[in-house]
Amino acid sequence: MVGLQELRTPALLVDRPRLLANLRDMAARADALGVALRPHVKTHKSPAIAALQRDGGAVGLTVATVTEAECFAAHGHRDLLITTPPVGGWRLDRVVALARQGRIRVSVDDADVVASLEQACRRSGVEVGFLWELDCGAGRFGSVPGRASAELIARVADGVRHCSFDGLLTFPGHAYAATGLGGIVAAAEDEREAIVRTADELEARGVEVRVRSVGSTPTAHVMSSGEGITEMRPGNYAFYDATQTALGVVAPDRCALSVLATVVSRPSRDRLILDSGSKALAAERLSTLTPGYGMVVAHPELRVERLYEEQAVVCSDRECSIPIGARVRVVPNHACAAVNLHSELMVLEEEEIVERWAVEARGWGHGHEAAGRDRLAAATG
Amino acid sequence: MVGLQELRTPALLVDRPRLLANLRDMAARADALGVALRPHVKTHKSPAIAALQRDGGAVGLTVATVTEAECFAAHGHRDLLITTPPVGGWRLDRVVALARQGRIRVSVDDADVVASLEQACRRSGVEVGFLWELDCGAGRFGSVPGRASAELIARVADGVRHCSFDGLLTFPGHAYAATGLGGIVAAAEDEREAIVRTADELEARGVEVRVRSVGSTPTAHVMSSGEGITEMRPGNYAFYDATQTALGVVAPDRCALSVLATVVSRPSRDRLILDSGSKALAAERLSTLTPGYGMVVAHPELRVERLYEEQAVVCSDRECSIPIGARVRVVPNHACAAVNLHSELMVLEEEEIVERWAVEARGWGHGHEAAGRDRLAAATG
Repeated sequence: MVGLQELRTPALLVDRPRLLANLRDMAARADALGVALRPHVKTHKSPAIAALQRDGGAVGLTVATVTEAECFAAHGHRDLLITTPPVGGWRLDRVVALARQGRIRVSVDDADVVASLEQACRRSGVEVGFLWELDCGAGRFGSVPGRASAELIARVADGVRHCSFDGLLTFPGHAYAATGLGGIVAAAEDEREAIVRTADELEARGVEVRVRSVGSTPTAHVMSSGEGITEMRPGNYAFYDATQTALGVVAPDRCALSVLATVVSRPSRDRLILDSGSKALAAERLSTLTPGYGMVVAHPELRVERLYEEQAVVCSDRECSIPIGARVRVVPNHACAAVNLHSELMVLEEEEIVERWAVEARGWGHGHEAAGRDRLAAATG
Repeated sequence: MVGLQELRTPALLVDRPRLLANLRDMAARADALGVALRPHVKTHKSPAIAALQRDGGAVGLTVATVTEAECFAAHGHRDLLITTPPVGGWRLDRVVALARQGRIRVSVDDADVVASLEQACRRSGVEVGFLWELDCGAGRFGSVPGRASAELIARVADGVRHCSFDGLLTFPGHAYAATGLGGIVAAAEDEREAIVRTADELEARGVEVRVRSVGSTPTAHVMSSGEGITEMRPGNYAFYDATQTALGVVAPDRCALSVLATVVSRPSRDRLILDSGSKALAAERLSTLTPGYGMVVAHPELRVERLYEEQAVVCSDRECSIPIGARVRVVPNHACAAVNLHSELMVLEEEEIVERWAVEARGWGHGHEAAGRDRLAAATG
């Protein structure tokens, strides 16, 4: 065991009791709603945490990219949903290779992409399922919910023999633009409505919609029932962060992830400089409600005003006595982005580091190499 | 050689002819100004590029962290300036170990930090130089330029026997808040004035100020003379980026770094989705002048409006015919942050990838491990 004072900084800490409580509570919430939990592992990119989620009842995992899928498949996960459409020959090749090992579903929003998936499945003799993505308001992927989409999906579903239409998917990304819980409740209603309306149109055309998948940590928190949907894909809930706190989704004491930083300069009485910059915390502001670039634990008087690459400029509302050399913990604005900057999570229990977990799928999204270890070897050779 | 169509995306490309021209032009600029060039390698974190800078006449390298210093020292660089103060026993130990191999200078802004450096040098018998940092307007590290700082520095310089006061350093980070070249010119004047005024006060007290070090790519471009300073530390100029372009520092055709991305969805006629999100481009906006999250090469009608972790939402001013599967290149807002997200640079020449360069110091800033290879092995074991 290593004490917090012995760690080099910046270091990424995960409070294990909080993490376990977060995982348990979301699993219980999915149970209570009567929907399956398929957590999005882009948040932690860590096989150690995915194993906890599986043991806690997750039906499978959601991943953002083919290369994340490969990482978790290598750790024995056999039911994966990939939320980037399989565009490009290399992606199709790898999706097909993954499908030889277990169930792979991909999300799509285009008939030609389904046609190329159908060809790849026909050639290889393996089956890949697809979920059609609807845009419930995020303005990213997806077709407009309702009749026109249902007509298109029905034609697409009818035209495939080697891949299969398994259902509908949507992502309420606009929940992060909410200025309070009311906006999140509205986004949750948008996602349900997008799925139900389109599913009804499809079933009226004789097309079965087995999977009805919705997403996001904020909306998972406010959903009042699971009616009309079958699974949810929250990711951030493993850790939560300053954005979830600012949105009112959880209280600050639920945040399980923080960056341990050292005060390296005290240029004035109301300012201190930490060694945790944008390359440790990520300079992201997902919500206009976050007052800065993170929350300093146990110091509500401090604001993380600016991030340079290796420094945070922290200002205080009053004269501040924290000396050079002191250590503080900063909860990042966006946990998923912060984790991606670190190669390991230091597992914290009662102020001691009891274990280290690899952020093994970090960087896999770029997918230059076929295998992760080879990739890392090549990158340092 | 590999064609651009064969690469998996997102991939980080560096246009070698542009890179070489950028390196050459800044070296010539330093020559013309009569100041030494000590490039900041946090921008590229790549020994291959540092070697080009050394061959082009750089007197040494600037690094942000002890761990970056270790990476470049392992590649034979023997004159390094570390711009994070050596706070914490582990940093002092490693600074001293580095100083056994070559010249190490650190920047400091506090008398107690110098006292601990003095003790470490006395115990180990190696000498480390320090530069005192002045705050010329960035509001980060540094004491206020002028008489009070000079009095403090003179006392500190007089009190050390085992480490040495080598000079003054400042960083004009406020140049990035400029809304045009006028603001950058003013920041360049601030940095010179901070150094000269304090150096004059020190020399009046009999303290020699051998090194007078200033920084930043924007101010390096507008400096009218090298009078009163001895070295400059620009970093970003190796690549430039959408921020430098928006500030008016360079024309877009000087940008050497881009992210190759694939169109993975066309949800509407004026919107396309790329597979290059915040985990490939970095969701940073350093300047209020940048219109979005990057510049799409050869497509001025496109705006990168939002970044999700693995997707960019790109909007067009007019109906847009770029199909799913097409590839585009995006120049990031902040090259230094984007490079830190990738493990290798694909070296581009005449539309072919001719070489791959490791971003070897990537992640070293976190410094959990003593050696980079061990660190990567541990992170994936």
